[in-house]
Amino acid sequence: MSSGKINVSVENIFPLIKKFLYSDHEIFLRELISNATDATLKLKHLTSIGEAKVEYGNPKIEVKIDKEGKKLHIIDQGLGMTLEEVEKYINQIAFSGAEEFLEKYKDTAKDSGVIGHFGLGFYSAFMVASKVEIITKSYKDEPAAHWSCDGSPEFTLVPTDKKERGTEIILHIAEDSLEFLEEGKIKGLLTKYNKFMPIPIVFGTKQEALPKPEDAPEDYKTEYKEVENIINNPNPAWTKQPSDLKDEDYKSFYRELYPMQFDEPLFHIHLNVDYPFNLTGILYFPKLAADLQIQKDKIQLYQNQVFVTDNVDGIVPEFLTMLKGVIDSPDIPLNVSRSYLQADGNVKKISNYITRKVSDKLKSLFNENRADFEAKWNDIKIVLEYGMLSEPKFYEKAGDFVLYPTVDEKYYTLAELKEQLKASQTDKDGKLVVLYASNKEAQHSYIEAAKEKEYEVLLLDSPIVSHLIQKLEADNENLTFARVDGDVIEKLIQKDDAQLSKLSDEEKESLKSVIEAIVPKEKYSVQLEAMDSKSAPFLITQPEFMRRMKEMSQTGGGMFGMGNFPEMYNLVVNTNSDLATSILNSENEEVKASLVKQALDLAKLSQGLLKGEELTSFVKRSFETLR
Amino acid sequence: MSSGKINVSVENIFPLIKKFLYSDHEIFLRELISNATDATLKLKHLTSIGEAKVEYGNPKIEVKIDKEGKKLHIIDQGLGMTLEEVEKYINQIAFSGAEEFLEKYKDTAKDSGVIGHFGLGFYSAFMVASKVEIITKSYKDEPAAHWSCDGSPEFTLVPTDKKERGTEIILHIAEDSLEFLEEGKIKGLLTKYNKFMPIPIVFGTKQEALPKPEDAPEDYKTEYKEVENIINNPNPAWTKQPSDLKDEDYKSFYRELYPMQFDEPLFHIHLNVDYPFNLTGILYFPKLAADLQIQKDKIQLYQNQVFVTDNVDGIVPEFLTMLKGVIDSPDIPLNVSRSYLQADGNVKKISNYITRKVSDKLKSLFNENRADFEAKWNDIKIVLEYGMLSEPKFYEKAGDFVLYPTVDEKYYTLAELKEQLKASQTDKDGKLVVLYASNKEAQHSYIEAAKEKEYEVLLLDSPIVSHLIQKLEADNENLTFARVDGDVIEKLIQKDDAQLSKLSDEEKESLKSVIEAIVPKEKYSVQLEAMDSKSAPFLITQPEFMRRMKEMSQTGGGMFGMGNFPEMYNLVVNTNSDLATSILNSENEEVKASLVKQALDLAKLSQGLLKGEELTSFVKRSFETLR
Repeated sequence: MSSGKINVSVENIFPLIKKFLYSDHEIFLRELISNATDATLKLKHLTSIGEAKVEYGNPKIEVKIDKEGKKLHIIDQGLGMTLEEVEKYINQIAFSGAEEFLEKYKDTAKDSGVIGHFGLGFYSAFMVASKVEIITKSYKDEPAAHWSCDGSPEFTLVPTDKKERGTEIILHIAEDSLEFLEEGKIKGLLTKYNKFMPIPIVFGTKQEALPKPEDAPEDYKTEYKEVENIINNPNPAWTKQPSDLKDEDYKSFYRELYPMQFDEPLFHIHLNVDYPFNLTGILYFPKLAADLQIQKDKIQLYQNQVFVTDNVDGIVPEFLTMLKGVIDSPDIPLNVSRSYLQADGNVKKISNYITRKVSDKLKSLFNENRADFEAKWNDIKIVLEYGMLSEPKFYEKAGDFVLYPTVDEKYYTLAELKEQLKASQTDKDGKLVVLYASNKEAQHSYIEAAKEKEYEVLLLDSPIVSHLIQKLEADNENLTFARVDGDVIEKLIQKDDAQLSKLSDEEKESLKSVIEAIVPKEKYSVQLEAMDSKSAPFLITQPEFMRRMKEMSQTGGGMFGMGNFPEMYNLVVNTNSDLATSILNSENEEVKASLVKQALDLAKLSQGLLKGEELTSFVKRSFETLR
Repeated sequence: MSSGKINVSVENIFPLIKKFLYSDHEIFLRELISNATDATLKLKHLTSIGEAKVEYGNPKIEVKIDKEGKKLHIIDQGLGMTLEEVEKYINQIAFSGAEEFLEKYKDTAKDSGVIGHFGLGFYSAFMVASKVEIITKSYKDEPAAHWSCDGSPEFTLVPTDKKERGTEIILHIAEDSLEFLEEGKIKGLLTKYNKFMPIPIVFGTKQEALPKPEDAPEDYKTEYKEVENIINNPNPAWTKQPSDLKDEDYKSFYRELYPMQFDEPLFHIHLNVDYPFNLTGILYFPKLAADLQIQKDKIQLYQNQVFVTDNVDGIVPEFLTMLKGVIDSPDIPLNVSRSYLQADGNVKKISNYITRKVSDKLKSLFNENRADFEAKWNDIKIVLEYGMLSEPKFYEKAGDFVLYPTVDEKYYTLAELKEQLKASQTDKDGKLVVLYASNKEAQHSYIEAAKEKEYEVLLLDSPIVSHLIQKLEADNENLTFARVDGDVIEKLIQKDDAQLSKLSDEEKESLKSVIEAIVPKEKYSVQLEAMDSKSAPFLITQPEFMRRMKEMSQTGGGMFGMGNFPEMYNLVVNTNSDLATSILNSENEEVKASLVKQALDLAKLSQGLLKGEELTSFVKRSFETLR
């Protein structure tokens, strides 16, 4: 038997790193700046506990491009390394300095903000560099060190004469990575990954106007000086206490997060918890565009102010991925697969916490300023409705703030709605019928018919509303939803007081056969109803159940295959209308037919079904009558 | 000065691997099966050149789950390893056996299909396993070896008594990765990554019906036997010669690629080139659904039959990412960033080759069976139109096969269209005016007006058609496109023969002021035209330029900010119509107003602008007249 240590062959460690990171070469910069930040925060900690007897000062991190020399410099003013430490931390690849540091100072280091998660990443520099140099001077009174390696396992390490404390990394950018010498590219990366890191990062200079002198002449021209351009905000809003922030601070942080976005957030939710897990962040309800697809992936995930990803699937409940904002938590495991993430108890707790905070915030917004909440309803409803369908815990709380608006812009909670409609819209079987429309324009005549009976009509126009209605019906006894064009209003809410029919049964039979002879049977099923004589003489309706199932199957769900069923309509004829009498009494067959056809066309117009050639000929005919 | 070798600390190589691979744990299986395939193909090669004196046989790769023991086995019948080779290939981590092999046998190995790209990946097993064992017997007459490692750098290596040639890898699945003991999970992974690998892969068993005996009784029940379930197709269509495949073979391969898809491809393009780069593959034109978003990422990229990714951005020209199919090329660099990929000369050549093959195929389909090509036009047009806009090389060739259909389903190439329309649709300034509609139903009355003049009307209904029209106008002198509802037909194609006006200038002035007093000025600009007396008396048109710019800015492009301009319409009054005379001659102001209002409503109906309350009141009024 033999045993021993696996010998990692360094000739091949670089291809290994390159291979496994191929889609993400750019993260080398995040790794190096994280290391620089780490080294600076460590120094801060050591000075604060008196271990390092030096001035901490106002350290910064500098990034410089040397285009001619094909070099990229990252310079920090952190604790630096002695020759011995370079040997230990750099030559022993993948030996995480941060971990050892945390181990040593674990009691005092807890709150010092040491990053530690990216300590392994120094060697990612070789993804883009053919040669890497480190020039570093420790805060300790020891000579500076110069390390250099061209990607082969041979390195050189010599003392050097750097005077200032800190570390400079020099990347000799490889031929296949020259993009990383472009100012725009580096600026983009710094903005993406380091925008909120806790140490100021300087990249290039910018011009700043000098104050106008008191004795400036009339034609004084503003003078400028070059100042360092700091690209990050080391103290982003989410790291502060909610009590220290005004509404305007949240809005300006939103503009910082999404500089290309010109909308204002509707409201924000500040997340801040440290037990049983550590999480801070700010979520914003944006105004949602019509197209929901492009709204996703707007929440940014950070760990100790380092950008990690904008994919928060599994961490944030799905319905909230339509929100914007940031979440910062060192407690979200990154080194695991998505499916593991979703099963992880800690992550589940985070997701539940976020759901609860969102519903608490919605409830307080509703209670504090209902008028304002109502005004925002149209922009937030899709998120809330989707949440009711997908998160049972959110559904439980939704009764407190979810609104049901009417076509006249009154807003009810479900409980209020029931109370309001009870007297007028309970049918003869004791069912409370909630009428709704999905489009005020297209269903206008049907809405009017309902209003004439003094019924309320809700406006429910989200794409997923049929699913929500189905759920509400299942969970609320004796509650039923009916779209206004599902039937004639007298039958949508059936009362005991039946209308008397002007026509005898015999006349009805005769009228029905006249109409059925003219109207295409495969499209319309003819129904005779004794209605108010002033109601529309002909009316086209589409039965609720069928339509709802079709809608549900179009948005995922409902009964299988219903989406492919043909559209089915009823043609309702009001036997009490004068037109019905005219048709019945007309002696001339041609007149009879033209009355029915014209009436059918008018009913189709109301339901949006008169189109193309039929519409052209209707308009032509109408112009002729007019003349 | 000191120098030396970097010492990779193995305590930390596993966290490094885990970290860098976190989003892709599942690829461990692809890596191990690639290694197994590699070992088998190497043996095949060695036997074929007489280097290995053993029977190659019909080797397979077996994957087995041991749920109770929490183990996953991958067993091959390839060349195996001696103790010495395990020491060399496994203990020297990241030492790629395949590369050394290729170096040694590079002349003969070229065509043997050695995979070689995934040789580095054995250690990815530790992403999911707490302990890994290798039991391996070389084809050489030497004892078998048993290697075992629990993730710490200590391993054990002992001789063992395995008799059969080949390698068995045993993964002791870690607690956080138990999902990889689920049959469904493993089957899913094998199907995703290994569906077309060149060695048969056995996973579990299935039942196969035994043949019915000749003397079977009446009530004979089919008997079954357990057979090995082979999950892959080692010889997928794209590896064969086009001349060896029938149309049905391509269709059945399509079903193999997309088993959940029930559509038939419209046609296929077989890619096959070996100089200056190596690439095989089959692309399919699918029937495109209305929603283009979900159609992307359907082309699968392979390297030597190993699935790599379904993201082919940068490799396939963007307009062709709407196609489906496979591309297999060892010459596409994977270990680079996307932006490098797009700048790579070889990749650019591949992209150009694909574009050329696609346009050649389209041209030959058009030439060989034009009727069939026309029948498919509606399903392929969006891809081709997008290609014309985005790929200059494709645009150059598009004249040969891109079609312009009319509302009556005639199809012209651009050259044919010009020839056909020249005589009738050239206006008085020598411009050829191509009339088009975007919707046959909605623009029916306008189409009819054009047809009455015996003009052809194209049906151009793609969402990007306004961009295409803009480009065609820019590239073809004296060619202009006009939508049928852009103006009255007499002005869309202006001829010299001006219509005489029935009304005097004074009468016109008077009519105009009557109409302008009633029609809302902010919505409609009133224009009086002397037209055919049988043409519509009132007509609403929307000027071409404004509408097209608005459409272009909605789909990206056009003039900045045009999307927010209000809709503008013209109300054209036919001064030669009887209605115009009636309005003018009516003594009663009320009658005059009601004539104008009704005529405006009818014109709005034709243009789809009469909605909501206006429509309801129009229908109500019409029912009353009818009665």
